[in-house]
Formats: sequence, C-alpha cells, structure tokens
Amino acid sequence: MFTSLLEEHITYFSSLLPERCFTDIGNIEKYSHDETEDLYVLPEIVLKPETAEEVASILAYCNMHKIPVTPSGARTGLSGGAIPVEKGVALSMERFNRILHIDEDNLQVTTEPGVITQVLQEAVKEKGLFYPPDPASKGSCFIGGNVSENSGGPKAVKYGVTADYVLNLEVVLPTGEIIWTGANVLKNATGYNLTQLMVGSEGTLGIITKIVLRLIPHPTHDLLMLVPFYNAEEACAAVSTIFKKGITPSGLEFMERDALLWTHDFLGESTVNIGENHAAHLLIEVDGFDPDVLMNECSDIMEVLDGFQTDEILFADTQAQKDALWKLRRSVGEAVKANSIYKEEDTVVPRYALPELLSHVKRIGDEYGFKSVCYGHAGDGNLHVNIIKGELSDHQWNEELPKAIRALFEEVVNLNGTLSGEHGIGLVQKDYMDIPFTEKSLSLMRHIKSIFDPNGILNPGKIFTE
Amino acid sequence: MFTSLLEEHITYFSSLLPERCFTDIGNIEKYSHDETEDLYVLPEIVLKPETAEEVASILAYCNMHKIPVTPSGARTGLSGGAIPVEKGVALSMERFNRILHIDEDNLQVTTEPGVITQVLQEAVKEKGLFYPPDPASKGSCFIGGNVSENSGGPKAVKYGVTADYVLNLEVVLPTGEIIWTGANVLKNATGYNLTQLMVGSEGTLGIITKIVLRLIPHPTHDLLMLVPFYNAEEACAAVSTIFKKGITPSGLEFMERDALLWTHDFLGESTVNIGENHAAHLLIEVDGFDPDVLMNECSDIMEVLDGFQTDEILFADTQAQKDALWKLRRSVGEAVKANSIYKEEDTVVPRYALPELLSHVKRIGDEYGFKSVCYGHAGDGNLHVNIIKGELSDHQWNEELPKAIRALFEEVVNLNGTLSGEHGIGLVQKDYMDIPFTEKSLSLMRHIKSIFDPNGILNPGKIFTE
Repeated sequence: MFTSLLEEHITYFSSLLPERCFTDIGNIEKYSHDETEDLYVLPEIVLKPETAEEVASILAYCNMHKIPVTPSGARTGLSGGAIPVEKGVALSMERFNRILHIDEDNLQVTTEPGVITQVLQEAVKEKGLFYPPDPASKGSCFIGGNVSENSGGPKAVKYGVTADYVLNLEVVLPTGEIIWTGANVLKNATGYNLTQLMVGSEGTLGIITKIVLRLIPHPTHDLLMLVPFYNAEEACAAVSTIFKKGITPSGLEFMERDALLWTHDFLGESTVNIGENHAAHLLIEVDGFDPDVLMNECSDIMEVLDGFQTDEILFADTQAQKDALWKLRRSVGEAVKANSIYKEEDTVVPRYALPELLSHVKRIGDEYGFKSVCYGHAGDGNLHVNIIKGELSDHQWNEELPKAIRALFEEVVNLNGTLSGEHGIGLVQKDYMDIPFTEKSLSLMRHIKSIFDPNGILNPGKIFTE
Repeated sequence: MFTSLLEEHITYFSSLLPERCFTDIGNIEKYSHDETEDLYVLPEIVLKPETAEEVASILAYCNMHKIPVTPSGARTGLSGGAIPVEKGVALSMERFNRILHIDEDNLQVTTEPGVITQVLQEAVKEKGLFYPPDPASKGSCFIGGNVSENSGGPKAVKYGVTADYVLNLEVVLPTGEIIWTGANVLKNATGYNLTQLMVGSEGTLGIITKIVLRLIPHPTHDLLMLVPFYNAEEACAAVSTIFKKGITPSGLEFMERDALLWTHDFLGESTVNIGENHAAHLLIEVDGFDPDVLMNECSDIMEVLDGFQTDEILFADTQAQKDALWKLRRSVGEAVKANSIYKEEDTVVPRYALPELLSHVKRIGDEYGFKSVCYGHAGDGNLHVNIIKGELSDHQWNEELPKAIRALFEEVVNLNGTLSGEHGIGLVQKDYMDIPFTEKSLSLMRHIKSIFDPNGILNPGKIFTE
C-alpha cells in the first residue's frame, strides 16, 4: 500500500529541512521504538520540523506520495504508538520545545507539544499555577504525547486527566491544512468537539503543533501516607470506601508486594519497610490550601481504614520522605521492565470493581500459568497489570498469552470497564478493540480516521486492525 | 430532499407506537418550538417512544424513507435545536423519564434522557451526591437536552459543564443501530472519544437513550454575596482579578442594571435595592465542606473588591435570602423575553477579555442603533447578550441586525472566544459558523455528520448551513 522512500523523496526532505533530516543509523535506531516492551521497527528517515508550516509541507508531500508518517514525541509511550510499523518517516516533534505564553490573566498556558511535562509544570508553578496531569514519565515525556494519549497520572483521581485541561489545539491535518480545533474558553457549545476528538487519538488524525491548556491555582499543602495491607483485595476494597465517605484524595495508588520489592531492588535502596505479611500498600495523598482541612481529611481516611486489616501507617514527615515515596511509586514501571520480559495491560474499571478485577487477574494467571505484578491508580479504578514472562515458553508467551489477555479484557468489559485508562491502544492492544466496541462503533471510528486522513498515511497500523 | 409524511408512514408509526403517535393540532403545535425567540415550524407527527429499540425502529424506518426526525426534549433550548424545520417527525424523549441506577459505590448515576435535571440533582443529593451542571431552566429542562447542548449553568465556573460529567452514552444511530460510546470509567484512552463527540452535537448524530454521569460529594456549606458596581466594565474586570488571587468561587454571575430592573418587574417583587448609580452587580458564591474556609475565601474576595469602586455588599444571611437571589438571577432570561422581542447571543471569551467584550457590545449597539441587556456566567467568560428590538424597524431587525451580530462575533473570535458557551448553534447561529471555523474545519464536521447520518434525516437544518 505504501511507497518506499525513494532518492527523490530524500532529496525533497533534505531541501525542505536541511540539517534536520536524518538517515544515519544512530537516528534511525533511536526513533524505531518507544518504551513498549522490546518492540522496534526502523523508519527510513527521521525529520525534525520546527514550525507548523514545515509539518504541513511534509504531510502534504507524504500524502501525495503515500509515504507513511509516524509522529514521535519523547518515545515514552507504553502502547507502541511511536513505532513506525510501516517504516517511512519518523516525524520527531522535539524541536517544538517552547512554552509560548503563560497567561496569568486567564489561567491558561499556550505551549508547543515538544515541551517536557515536568518543565511545563515547573514553569507554571513559578506563577502559582498548577497543571496536574503527570504520568510516571513526567521528567522525560512530552506534553504533546500526553495530549495524544490522554495521559493520566497519580493526580487524575482528584484533578482529572489531560483531556480535562485541553481547551484548544492547533493541528496540521494529514492533507496539509492547519486548523484550530476550538477556542481558548472554559465552555464551548459551538459545533462538534474536534478538540476532544484529537485528544487521545494517538497521532492518527493530525499533528498537534500548539496546545492551549487551562490551569488552576497550585495547592499549597499536602499530606502523604503509606498504608500496608495484609490482603491485596482488601486494599482495593478500601479505595472505594474512602470515596464513599466523601473524601477525594489527590492521589490514591495501589502497589502489590512484588511491585515494591522489585522497585527496592531496582533503585538499590529500601525506601520502606515491607513486612513479610504485607500483601499490598496504598499510597494516599491529600492536598489543598488549608493544613487543618487536610489533617481532618487524614483523620477521616484513618477512620475508614479502621474498618480494614492494616499494619502501621507511615506518614511522610518531611518533603524528602514524600519525594522518596513518590519516587518509589514512579519507579515501579521501570523496575518491572528491568526485572523480566513482561507485557503491561492498562485495565480500568469503576473503582468499586477493583477487588473483583484483581481476583480475575490472579485467577486467569493461575489458569494460563503466568505470574503478574499489579499496581496503579486505584482511585481511578486504573490497574496496571504486568504479566511476567518468567518461566513461560516462547510458545506460551506468543500463542497462549493473547488468549489470557482476551479473557482478562472480557472480564474488564463485563465490569463496565475498558482496555486502557491512560496508555492508549496503539500497536499492542488493537487486536482487542472488538471487546469493548461493536463492529458498528469501530466502523464509525475508522470512517472518522478516513475523513481526516483519506490516504491513511498518518501513524498507520495503530488503534485499528487491518 | 425529504419525503412528506404519507398515509402509509402514519399507519406504520401508529402500529409501532399505538397511543404514542400524535397528529392532533394540540401536539403538533406543542412540538413546533422551543424557547428560542418566537420561532416555530409544525412537525407532521409527534412520536413518543419509550425504549431504545422503539427509537431504533423509528430511525431505521425514517432513514429508509428519508423522513426528517427532530429530537425533542423539554423544549427549553435557546438556539432552536428542537424546531422541526424540515417538518416530518418530532421525536419526543419525554417517556424516557426514569433514573435507572444511583451507584453509590462508584459515585455514578445511570439515567434516561427525559429526566428533569433538577429531579436528577435532588435524587442524587438525597445520597449526599452532587451533579453540578444546572442551566437556568433546571426545573423543566431534561438531562438529555443538557448533554446534547453541553449545558453549563452557574456552577460551571468551579465544577465544569455537562461534558465534564458524562462518562458513557447509549445512542441510537440514525441508521438504527444501538451503541455504547465508551465505558463507565473515570479515565479512558481506548479509541476515539465518541462520548465527547456526542456531547454537544445537538441531536444531529444520534438519539441518546441512556446516560452515565459521574457524581461528586455534595458540598455542605455555601456563602453568597451580591456586589453593586458603579461601572459595568469594572465589574467584569473584578472577575478575573478574583481568580488571579487563587480563589475559585462556585458561582460568579454578572447582571447589568436593566437585567435586574426588568427581572424585578417580571417577578413583581424587588429582591434587592438597586441604587440609581448601580451599573451592574456581581453575584458571588463560594461553597465547600468547611465554614471557616469559606469565610476566609469571602475575606479574600472582599480584599480583591477593595481595589474596585463598589457600593455596600449584601451577604445573604438565610437560606431564604440565598434562594431569592438565585431566583432573581435565574429569572433574568425569562424577564428579558417577557419585556420585548429580542435575540440572545451566548458569547464566550477568556474571562480577562470580558470588559473588552462588553465594550464591543455597547459600541456595536451604538453603531447599529440597538440597546442590549447583558448578564451571564462571568466567571466562565460567558456573557449572554440580549439584543432588544425596542424601536428598531422590521427592516433594521431583519436586515441590519445580522451584520451587527456578525461584527460582534468577529470581535469575540478576535478575543480567542467563540459563538456559544452553552446554548449551542442550532438554527439561529449556524450562519455565523464561518467566523470561528475555517472551511476545512466545517468540512470535517459535515463529513462526521454524514458518517453518522448518511441520509441527513436527523435534526436537519441545524449547526450547518446548506
């Protein structure tokens, strides 16, 4: 279907982007993968445009010549969205690295997509403002990737996900036109919501070149506690009980025993004491503007926890201790990755269904003979299920495991949940899209794709099966 | 393009919905209009289905026979969305009036679309839960209409609009298939966001038959104050200053002098004392769970207001006084409607641009010779501009005014705002859609429409010009 890159194409790109057009093996290898398992496909050329107009020229050209284009951010994704599976162009957005305007009058920021999320957070925090969504990879991921995947992170439980902050987007369409999707306003009932159609579309509908985000006042205080449970399902059950009590923590993270042990190993330091009978921990944060209110919320949480079997609760006394606990939590993903070949599922269910979900994970693991390590944003019902290759044969891993994953996702959908809470579908989950969606819904999505991208050049091979 | 209703069609509908299929003049007239100005078009038949399957049968039949179908909720809309401009079927959703499940475990509610918003709010409040978005018409509008228009209301400034609460929708497509758009989860990165594409699509893409909303804990306390300003633009300027101070009120409403005077007349009672030199008022509410925190927020607001020229601030001491002030605010729209032939524009801009927007409104009014009364959700930058016919000739009203409105919307878009914050485009704003959107963006929207509704039978004549 697609054209291989010819000499004339390379000549065109070289003249369009002199010095920012790469075919050396170093760049080709670098842009062949993201953080998804051990998957990679080499692109034929890497382009690093700096303006929307340059992106428009590239896309118009590739559209005319049917050259596949895979957008590339910081390549921290976990669903293979940045892997150029059809080869062609890897379109790196790393030069779009400017925060264009922090609008303190309107509590908004306009940024280019290649800004690192943490850099953006820190820049607005200097003005007393808060951009809450920050995935575990916040120190390296790009805000544009966050928008494309609708990223969440630990604060989502109180503050919402990326989608909840995106007001307006400048987008280059695969056919080369540049549009704005909406307006810089907090409420909008003006035509179809193209902005939210772009958010989470995983680089398949257009290339985002400017992002307008709303901001909120930055909370001034927070409290953090780590709660050990003797039973993992009970830890999950405690989660919805806290919310039912009327408390909304700013973080409510679940970590299975092995997740913490492996992370200790990975970091080479024991941040917390993990008792022999600790099956799981909840990391619970509250934040706000009034220390007394936060103390009261903690008391309320303690009261809820009295109804469960927990060991001694650790309160973080200092900022250093808070940082250490969050570092522990944020490193779990990398630690699991370092420990074994694994597959990560990004299951999400209504939070009350978490204990049931965890029990399905373990039951299916027993049936198919795999071990799993689970952790994640329990307050959102978002459980990252890491399936460990361990002793499994390649046959089991490649042929049997997909059946197990399918069985798991079927249970997830039965619980009114879905495949991905924040990682996206990309390459590695697309075979399961028939579970949450009917053929008709998938057909609507495919047709939307073809409206935006009639030749299918943009991030081909993602979200949908052939 | 469309088929007139033949005897055989009426026979079909009568057999499908015996007793719920109406052609009498009473029903035909009732479903010919909503609350938009004095516009009406008579449908040929009124259908009142009760199940998604019945809706599917109706749509499949109408799709086959190219019969136009206009969905009808409580007909409180302000953009003409429920007017059956192409005649045919008025599809009333009033029998979908059951709250199906208040899920206290997950803080969600599943409801049919024909439930009155206030009824829904009160039902979940009994469980300590809060569904914040409530337009002025909350006592009569349907939640399904709110979803279709992406309604806001006074609480949106702190709690967001309808879109921010919709998790999942059951939708009957114009071709007769029934789909769910998403999952009952707080975060979702699974395919394109069909849920948010439906929200605010004004009944042009499908008929919503079930709605899953997230809920939050209901605040236990609130404080309300009314602030008189000697200068209307200064009142607007105070709005963004409050937010810049880091305060997020739960309501921040602006009312011009005439809006209050007319509402006093309309209600036949003087709720507040309006001094001769009062040009505008701000109604400011804070809410939460801790009375001390709210008192502090009020002090902070007072401190901000010290920087502006205000008259004596009225604090509502009792619930009765709060109710009276909110009744005053909620009645402004009806009062203006009762006073004169008028047109209401639903302009929205970044909130810091409010004073500039107001000055454009008055300047354009001077140029074109019209008087306007402005009020609205200033905290969101959402200003309802009511243009009064008054002494204008029919020629001026019909031929000149559209030019004035176009000039106003051009200024709105220059301020990074857009046409509608919460009323939708419907029939009465569609001629202005070329101002915020390029031809390419409009083309994307039209194509999306045709994917969902290839024969264009569903709510024809809305959002887009021919």
